[in-house]
Amino acid sequence: MPETKVKKSDDFNEWYNEIVELADLCDKRYPIKGMNVWKPYGWKLMNHVDQLIREEMVITDHQEVNFPLLIPESSFKKEEEHIEGFGSEVYWVTHAGLNKLEEKWLLRPTSETAMYPVFSLWIRSHADLPLKTYQIVNTFRYETKQTRAFIRVREIHFFEAHTCHVDFKDAERQIKEDKEIANRLFEKLSLPFIFNKRPDWDKFAGAFYTISIDVLMPSGRTLQLGSVHQYKDNFAKPYEISYETEDGKHAYCHQTTYGMSERILGALVGIHGDNKGLVMPPKVAPIQVVIIPIIFKGKEKPVLEACKNLCKKLDESGIKSHVDKREITPGNKYYDWEVKGVPLRVEIGPKDLEKKEIVIVRRDDGNKKSVLQSSSIKSIKEELDKISKSLFKNAKKLLDENMHRVQTIEEAKDLKGIVELPWCGTEDCALEIENILERNTLGEPIENEKCKYSCPVCGKPAKTWMRYAKTY
Amino acid sequence: MPETKVKKSDDFNEWYNEIVELADLCDKRYPIKGMNVWKPYGWKLMNHVDQLIREEMVITDHQEVNFPLLIPESSFKKEEEHIEGFGSEVYWVTHAGLNKLEEKWLLRPTSETAMYPVFSLWIRSHADLPLKTYQIVNTFRYETKQTRAFIRVREIHFFEAHTCHVDFKDAERQIKEDKEIANRLFEKLSLPFIFNKRPDWDKFAGAFYTISIDVLMPSGRTLQLGSVHQYKDNFAKPYEISYETEDGKHAYCHQTTYGMSERILGALVGIHGDNKGLVMPPKVAPIQVVIIPIIFKGKEKPVLEACKNLCKKLDESGIKSHVDKREITPGNKYYDWEVKGVPLRVEIGPKDLEKKEIVIVRRDDGNKKSVLQSSSIKSIKEELDKISKSLFKNAKKLLDENMHRVQTIEEAKDLKGIVELPWCGTEDCALEIENILERNTLGEPIENEKCKYSCPVCGKPAKTWMRYAKTY
Repeated sequence: MPETKVKKSDDFNEWYNEIVELADLCDKRYPIKGMNVWKPYGWKLMNHVDQLIREEMVITDHQEVNFPLLIPESSFKKEEEHIEGFGSEVYWVTHAGLNKLEEKWLLRPTSETAMYPVFSLWIRSHADLPLKTYQIVNTFRYETKQTRAFIRVREIHFFEAHTCHVDFKDAERQIKEDKEIANRLFEKLSLPFIFNKRPDWDKFAGAFYTISIDVLMPSGRTLQLGSVHQYKDNFAKPYEISYETEDGKHAYCHQTTYGMSERILGALVGIHGDNKGLVMPPKVAPIQVVIIPIIFKGKEKPVLEACKNLCKKLDESGIKSHVDKREITPGNKYYDWEVKGVPLRVEIGPKDLEKKEIVIVRRDDGNKKSVLQSSSIKSIKEELDKISKSLFKNAKKLLDENMHRVQTIEEAKDLKGIVELPWCGTEDCALEIENILERNTLGEPIENEKCKYSCPVCGKPAKTWMRYAKTY
Repeated sequence: MPETKVKKSDDFNEWYNEIVELADLCDKRYPIKGMNVWKPYGWKLMNHVDQLIREEMVITDHQEVNFPLLIPESSFKKEEEHIEGFGSEVYWVTHAGLNKLEEKWLLRPTSETAMYPVFSLWIRSHADLPLKTYQIVNTFRYETKQTRAFIRVREIHFFEAHTCHVDFKDAERQIKEDKEIANRLFEKLSLPFIFNKRPDWDKFAGAFYTISIDVLMPSGRTLQLGSVHQYKDNFAKPYEISYETEDGKHAYCHQTTYGMSERILGALVGIHGDNKGLVMPPKVAPIQVVIIPIIFKGKEKPVLEACKNLCKKLDESGIKSHVDKREITPGNKYYDWEVKGVPLRVEIGPKDLEKKEIVIVRRDDGNKKSVLQSSSIKSIKEELDKISKSLFKNAKKLLDENMHRVQTIEEAKDLKGIVELPWCGTEDCALEIENILERNTLGEPIENEKCKYSCPVCGKPAKTWMRYAKTY
């Protein structure tokens, strides 16, 4: 079987770039750098991820909305920290036709400043709360660093949930729900992750605190897939999002947001893929089972018939399958579907039919076995489940083996991946460690873990552990 | 039952504005005029329409893609007529952060000029053809006329299919398929329409010819819901979309596009709605059947049980239903669901249960009847089907009664709706008629109908009929 030119273990970044093109996920030749074309297969995958997110939104009672892309400068500028954080990263629309606009508009980098002036109209009384909304839209950031498909782009496919609550406590309950959503979602995607409470100097512009969702890529760098923000009433005050309480008083809402982006696709590609191509977790694969007829002259009919029957039975069981009837060799078909990461391949030939069997081949480990036709659906379901679990297990192993808790900077220096060091709680000491280790501060564990050691920089007693990693 | 403040028959445009807000479809108070917020119910409806479109795309083998929103000025300017047609209608991004862009970018008003430079990379040989793609995205037009929800907006929810073919003949086959798609789709939406071949001076900028899909609104104005364009090789030449033929020669592609927008929702609201609110065709209603328990003290349990059972059975039959258990009066519930246009209401009370019956009430004509519980699914399916047909029939009646074929301008003057007059084929005569009738030229029938009369302006023999109407 042909493999990628660059091996994943040799040069992860080059391998990633190759696989993204080979699997037909996107086209990077669009004339604006960092704005890529979603090709049909990539867009399908993204849509399947979105579908899993939407299912979570339904069970947690979030309503889908869709706000305008363009934001007037005056709406954007109401929250001071927010404009400081985003001001240099936004695209400005200044003209319509040949006319200069009276007020310039920006392309949303995220939608707080589009939504909150309208939320202030929607929310009148405590009976309107909690307000739980989300949208899946295109957002824009003026990236100056090197772009990379799905990981660092300038037009971003983005999920953002925005909620309003009666008080801080209820907003905290939302954060808890968001964490549960992340746990369920990323298990379906076979992506183990860690929550990191970002340090104060690196939280979202305007937030009270920020929790990031980070995965470890095989390159040893972490990739932030999403974040959950507690805003308190930081936005509610400037945007006047207030309500009448049960006893007739006036109070500001407390707000949260939960954002995730197309980086999820980047993680699926980078973490599960191998030198043959993508490996898609069954719950997100557009085709879960591909059926290949092994045809010899004169024996086409019963084989094709058996393939068609199996496909029908799989469909009825809610498993997305496809019979590849193209007139090319089975080997070429194997190659095509391996590149695309279809989790399970079924081969059916005359000999299998004689034995009333089918052959199933796992994409993740290449294991091949014959199972009885009579129990094919059961066997296929079991194998798909095994693949999900095995992908998760392998990714968890990668994460665990590359997370190191040490006490000194010296110990941390040669370690790959994420290191945890005692932290006194000051920005200065963390930045000093960043500099020495040439890594970024990821954040502290969200469990409020105590640390009995001393800060390796100032020697004062550590308040907690702090994580450092090279990041995308 | 409360009704709209403005009656549909008294002032259609005011009634339309009222109903859009009453049914919670969108919020027009966003600080940029003509850019509205999709509220959850409106967005759900739009998504259901999109779903019907996607089903058509699957059966006709179109692949969904997603191209960048921003288009470099240089890509936009390759086709001369196109820039002339759109140049004054686009929004320009000129700055990123504090920096002026080297080349300015526009927000897509439609995606020809985003897609075609990339198509020229995708298409190499006749084996790559036909290329059939589509996307559902946000597009932007700088509207200077008065905006109106779904009908004239500045950020437009837009469907656009783009296809490339070996020659004109194959592109013509695509146009035929597009017409079939429109026929199937708009029948599901209970929206009768007419195809109009736009006159040369009013075709899409860059097209060889344009066919519009127009419906008649109850105000007597037509609303264009979509269009199908034959481009010939008009874009393929400047964008260099060419391929190697089977005998090794070099040829340009012939292209078509098919566009439709959120105006479909405007038509659904305007044509089917009444003074109680929306009336949604069953195939697009987010909730098709709402079940209202009629509860008396002490008899709650069996009634709620029966409601739940029916809801479950409907779900299993693929009918989207909802039990309204809120603690408000049945009358208030009726009102809420009537405003939202749920096609069928089921009422279940203790007396109905005694008779082993349920009561079903049609939203479109208010007809109420009791049916046996044992055949409830069958009865409900039949009623939903009747509603679809009845909505179509009523809309068809409106259209037929307001389409008039006459021979003189004098006869046309007092007629409401669409008038057809003999046409000699010149722009001058059509514009003269436009002026006198204060209507716009819609286009000629696509069936190449002969007309044996004379042009009412110049008196020369007419080549065909031309349609005129006031338009949105």
